[in-house]
Amino acid sequence: MVSFTVFKGDRDGQLFEDTTTRNIGPHEVLIRITHSGLCGTDLHYKTTNSGLGHEGVGVVEEIGESVTRFKKGERAGWGYEHNSCGHCKQCLTGRETFCAEREMYGAANLDQGSIGSHAVLNENFLFKIPESLSSEEAAPLMCGGATVFNSLQLYNVRSTDRVGVLGVGGLGHLAIQFAARLGCEVAVFSGTDSKKDEAMRLGATEFYAVKGLKELKIKAPIDHLLVTTASQPDWNMYLPVMAPSGTIYPLTVSEDDLKMPYMPLIMQGLRMQGSLVATRQIHREMLEFAALHHIKPIIQTFPMSLEGVNKAFETLEAGKMRYRGVLVAQ
Amino acid sequence: MVSFTVFKGDRDGQLFEDTTTRNIGPHEVLIRITHSGLCGTDLHYKTTNSGLGHEGVGVVEEIGESVTRFKKGERAGWGYEHNSCGHCKQCLTGRETFCAEREMYGAANLDQGSIGSHAVLNENFLFKIPESLSSEEAAPLMCGGATVFNSLQLYNVRSTDRVGVLGVGGLGHLAIQFAARLGCEVAVFSGTDSKKDEAMRLGATEFYAVKGLKELKIKAPIDHLLVTTASQPDWNMYLPVMAPSGTIYPLTVSEDDLKMPYMPLIMQGLRMQGSLVATRQIHREMLEFAALHHIKPIIQTFPMSLEGVNKAFETLEAGKMRYRGVLVAQ
Repeated sequence: MVSFTVFKGDRDGQLFEDTTTRNIGPHEVLIRITHSGLCGTDLHYKTTNSGLGHEGVGVVEEIGESVTRFKKGERAGWGYEHNSCGHCKQCLTGRETFCAEREMYGAANLDQGSIGSHAVLNENFLFKIPESLSSEEAAPLMCGGATVFNSLQLYNVRSTDRVGVLGVGGLGHLAIQFAARLGCEVAVFSGTDSKKDEAMRLGATEFYAVKGLKELKIKAPIDHLLVTTASQPDWNMYLPVMAPSGTIYPLTVSEDDLKMPYMPLIMQGLRMQGSLVATRQIHREMLEFAALHHIKPIIQTFPMSLEGVNKAFETLEAGKMRYRGVLVAQ
Repeated sequence: MVSFTVFKGDRDGQLFEDTTTRNIGPHEVLIRITHSGLCGTDLHYKTTNSGLGHEGVGVVEEIGESVTRFKKGERAGWGYEHNSCGHCKQCLTGRETFCAEREMYGAANLDQGSIGSHAVLNENFLFKIPESLSSEEAAPLMCGGATVFNSLQLYNVRSTDRVGVLGVGGLGHLAIQFAARLGCEVAVFSGTDSKKDEAMRLGATEFYAVKGLKELKIKAPIDHLLVTTASQPDWNMYLPVMAPSGTIYPLTVSEDDLKMPYMPLIMQGLRMQGSLVATRQIHREMLEFAALHHIKPIIQTFPMSLEGVNKAFETLEAGKMRYRGVLVAQ
């Protein structure tokens, strides 16, 4: 039995510190958390009485009796998903993120997350951290990096394709880097020019400030558009710049209905592709690719304390995070 | 110079007979039309002063000086599309249906269609009719058959997938046959039980009468859902029966926006895939596959005269066509 600290939000969204007690099962590992990214999705989970955070990196402190993949003292990371059945069609075809029995962070009353002192996790859903990635840089890759890389990798984006990235935030600033390193032209769409220099430095080949525009004029059509803004965009603006047979990946969590012009979808053979974090194999490839190409999140750090967690949430909610918050164990 | 009869609709949707005069270009063929299918899309073109019909079958009567693929007296068919540039990215990758310079029936003031006495067409956009297909059976395959087969073939539907067909009409009754002959389980969704026996006879393995239902309970999730109804369905009913990573093909022409729940798309990794008639290679494969497997439309014939055309349009508009109207030259 181990007890450790977790951070949760109550029904009113008030953050608080709690204590969780768990057994370490035969295939489980006790992680001492050193870093946790803060994802936009956490804002949605603030009122669910759940252990917050799903971008964890830490050090293995204890291992269950059947654990074979990790040793004490090794670094490990984990993301949004932390279980799946292993025997359904989805699991057997490498799409375990869609297993109906999967467990994901954010579920109401979950007793742990990556924001806390420790977590107890199944070794099969933990990732080794490549040596050249620091833990603070690795944390935001666990959900943010995995989410954008999955859409590029699972759906076969090619180097000769043109990738659009809508929004330069936690996901967007990683999407630019991954798409650029895949060899693609990267067109970035952001409200104003304020993030232009950063976007170009990260690998964008074009930048469009779109605030107030009704119509886009861009260099050439977009084959893959990654939508990373906090809410759904005005689809009327983006459909006309899509290439025929192009794909739109809405990566935003939104309670609103999807509402978009219908006929352009048919006439241009466009695809709206729902995409969710990454399968484990793609997650591994993402980490190796990030290490190889020195892809690093731009982060703001906060102490892993109630005060620090509150401050990080406030910064994110105010839209002021540049570009990913990381909580650091003291 | 050749002159021939075409049928058009004026701004008020009143059908009338007109005469068109054309040269036969070096790569063009003069077809004496023997049969034309009547497609739901024609209802949208009734007010565009355009030559109506885009499911043509006829006999080659004259050939231009450079024509090599057709001889006088041979049968030929054609569909919705009748040109593309041949040198853009879409054309060079076998997706010429999305060529920006393509010409398609329905364009305002088009001077010919497949409803008429003749048409002058580029030999590169004409299809040979397999011997075992009668001309009246081949006509509805030129758009209806091509449209449903394209969604199954271009997007790699596999025999072990479960296909859903929503709507049993001109497209739906062909979709059931193609999907069944591809080896798939075919679940059919229709308003009432009135078309159940027909659907099962055509190859459906399940039939669901959905009128008045708020929720569907079906045998197993659907991997590919072909939506062939005249208007968009209540997406709330169909998203929950989709398999993870499943694809929805909206094949309906609709002026309404697409409006559907957003989060299921993300959480289940669903795909909305716009799909438009067929590329020429897939069109050929469709004709060969239909001939091999004796896939035949169920048709109602009307004479190719102003009276017959009016009668056919009325039957279609009243939702009473079982299941595809075919105009037959007298």
